[in-house]
Amino acid sequence: MELGLRDKLFRYVAYEEALRRALESVRLLEAEEVPLLGSVGRVLAEDVRASRDVPPRLISLVDGYAISSEDTAGASASTPVRLRASRSVYIGEEPGSLSRGEAIYVATDAYLPEGADAVVPVEAVRQEGDFVELRAPVSPGSYVLPAGGDVSAGQVILEAGRIVAPQDLELLAESGILKLRVRRKPIVALIPVGSELSYTREGGKKLEIRHAIVSEALRRHGAKAIAMPIAPDDPSKIREIVQKALDEADVIVTIGGTSVGRRDYVWATLKAMSEFEPMFRGLRLKPGRVTSMARVRGKPVVLLAGHFQSMIVGLIYVLLPMVRHMIGLEPDVRRVVARGRLSEDVGGSKFKKFRRIVFVRVEEGRVVPLRGPSFCRAPVARSHGFVEVPEGVELLRAGEEVNVLAAYGLWG
Amino acid sequence: MELGLRDKLFRYVAYEEALRRALESVRLLEAEEVPLLGSVGRVLAEDVRASRDVPPRLISLVDGYAISSEDTAGASASTPVRLRASRSVYIGEEPGSLSRGEAIYVATDAYLPEGADAVVPVEAVRQEGDFVELRAPVSPGSYVLPAGGDVSAGQVILEAGRIVAPQDLELLAESGILKLRVRRKPIVALIPVGSELSYTREGGKKLEIRHAIVSEALRRHGAKAIAMPIAPDDPSKIREIVQKALDEADVIVTIGGTSVGRRDYVWATLKAMSEFEPMFRGLRLKPGRVTSMARVRGKPVVLLAGHFQSMIVGLIYVLLPMVRHMIGLEPDVRRVVARGRLSEDVGGSKFKKFRRIVFVRVEEGRVVPLRGPSFCRAPVARSHGFVEVPEGVELLRAGEEVNVLAAYGLWG
Repeated sequence: MELGLRDKLFRYVAYEEALRRALESVRLLEAEEVPLLGSVGRVLAEDVRASRDVPPRLISLVDGYAISSEDTAGASASTPVRLRASRSVYIGEEPGSLSRGEAIYVATDAYLPEGADAVVPVEAVRQEGDFVELRAPVSPGSYVLPAGGDVSAGQVILEAGRIVAPQDLELLAESGILKLRVRRKPIVALIPVGSELSYTREGGKKLEIRHAIVSEALRRHGAKAIAMPIAPDDPSKIREIVQKALDEADVIVTIGGTSVGRRDYVWATLKAMSEFEPMFRGLRLKPGRVTSMARVRGKPVVLLAGHFQSMIVGLIYVLLPMVRHMIGLEPDVRRVVARGRLSEDVGGSKFKKFRRIVFVRVEEGRVVPLRGPSFCRAPVARSHGFVEVPEGVELLRAGEEVNVLAAYGLWG
Repeated sequence: MELGLRDKLFRYVAYEEALRRALESVRLLEAEEVPLLGSVGRVLAEDVRASRDVPPRLISLVDGYAISSEDTAGASASTPVRLRASRSVYIGEEPGSLSRGEAIYVATDAYLPEGADAVVPVEAVRQEGDFVELRAPVSPGSYVLPAGGDVSAGQVILEAGRIVAPQDLELLAESGILKLRVRRKPIVALIPVGSELSYTREGGKKLEIRHAIVSEALRRHGAKAIAMPIAPDDPSKIREIVQKALDEADVIVTIGGTSVGRRDYVWATLKAMSEFEPMFRGLRLKPGRVTSMARVRGKPVVLLAGHFQSMIVGLIYVLLPMVRHMIGLEPDVRRVVARGRLSEDVGGSKFKKFRRIVFVRVEEGRVVPLRGPSFCRAPVARSHGFVEVPEGVELLRAGEEVNVLAAYGLWG
């Protein structure tokens, strides 16, 4: 099968339009139930409501003596109040009830005995044998937390769309939540394309490593990547592996073979498949302009470039936003990590209609562009992030103050 | 064994002093070798140098025709140069050599044939049968990358102390680096303390969940946590489990049982062990003031508070910095995530000598303190981060502009 150049040609769309089509081409994934301890890092599919009060009963906030504030009304240095103190209550124990004239030792977080309405910290009393002496009146409610003082039954404690953080676990457990409904993880099938590639370097081939980069980035954004067999530069083989991937995954990603070279077969191969819907064929980002997207059998297929910087840009600007959108997260993964003045001009007239991404280092407050064609990996590895030259702007001039952006999950 | 109050008393040290002692009490861990694909997220123990040039030979940056620029010297629209073009070279293939008057098709990244010094992109030539026609001269070096144009053999490509990022993998692989020397992961033994706790809730006990919070936070900062058996409120049992942990881990962390309550045995138990060196007993942070640290048998033992907010503060301000220091990372995990004006006063005279940590939400640009004693988990779960009231400052006033900090790995 030979595929002609006309089946591959680019019709670059504006980045914002490409992103819109990418996001519209996917749906919010269904929810699944996970145990509390497996929920960290997952996205909540619904509001979580406390199923009980926290704390369930009045508790002591300190190690001290549970008392009735009425008993302490007249206490002063000259007329201390003496209370009998021979009992104690620890966390989880049934506290019984307090008699008039009694103080009961309570550990931090222990339930207060019936009849007690305040706690005096151990440091604030003098203990003598089975008695404690108070030299000041105690206000009702001192050092106690009422039932529901942290959260009350039925209250929304975490909202839908939130990523469960480690520090949420205790609140959830205390609120009686031991299972959570979260978005299912998107399954993304990665297909490296190129006859020169091998996962194992057998036969002197080149080690395929890009799937590992994309896979780790996806994992950090809540998706699960699966590595498909490598597709050689052969349309029938590409087709076969894409078909298999469509059976197994929610999103299919090809890496390489995307452009218009003689052995770049991916776009034309997809185009020849049944149930093919083009979403965009190229976009006005540079590097990354060959990034393309289609739907096949209703599933999104993202074509990432083979050139390294182009692949990274396609990952940051198209693939990660799309996958995040499937689990209800804000698509944009860029954040401002620094601001400073450019050390030299970036941009140029040639791709003025494109948004240009320039990898940069921040050195003593100056933003220094790292040059090198899209092939080069060192500018990315050496960078602290990147600067965008907006569409329509020819140049950003040396000395201009710019934001340095970085993609969450890649630059840490 | 009964332990007296005098063995537990706090001598709060300044936070900066406590941190200094914590960092000085640990050493940089040794290096270990890991395979390239297992290196993501690990900290490099030494500079990584390329073991070969990338690319290894002159390559084409586009799909096009490799030519000798001399052959195109006189080309113009009126006097086009015709070159014979019947051969092609793809990635990884031996390119042979170029004859005078010849153009050889080269795929992107393919090696250039001997004698070729430039490439003309496919879009820039007219092909007619076995010939291509050029209508302009081509400069030497056009669309090619010389050997070592990305990195050259011997060049430092990633520096010691850096965390390997997903996007570094391709540069490393291409540079011939398939194994890396990284810092060994610190092993941190977690000992939840409390007779009321159970990992499984057997016998109606309270589900122990804090080890999971600390464990996940540690994992996100490059350490490996192991959950030890839960220690009941019994000095001999605490001692036994600490001894076991000292055999297995680099750092020991107890959670709970840290304060001066009757059943708070941890500090006094450690103090009674041989080879005990106190580092600090309490520090001027609030919440978190009971956080303590010792060395036993030369190993650091960190005592985190049982109260939730106190535990979180101890984690952020002491444990994570210490563990990061062991692998050569910047200890501080705080970063500024927002800036805004306080909606109300925070602070107060009572703990003026302490650094006070107040969990806050950012609502329409205002920084809103989330109240609730250290017991409460909801203020942390609902927060976007926290504000610090510095030592010696009584109050931060409503309307004052403050930085909202968050700990990397907890607030995402």
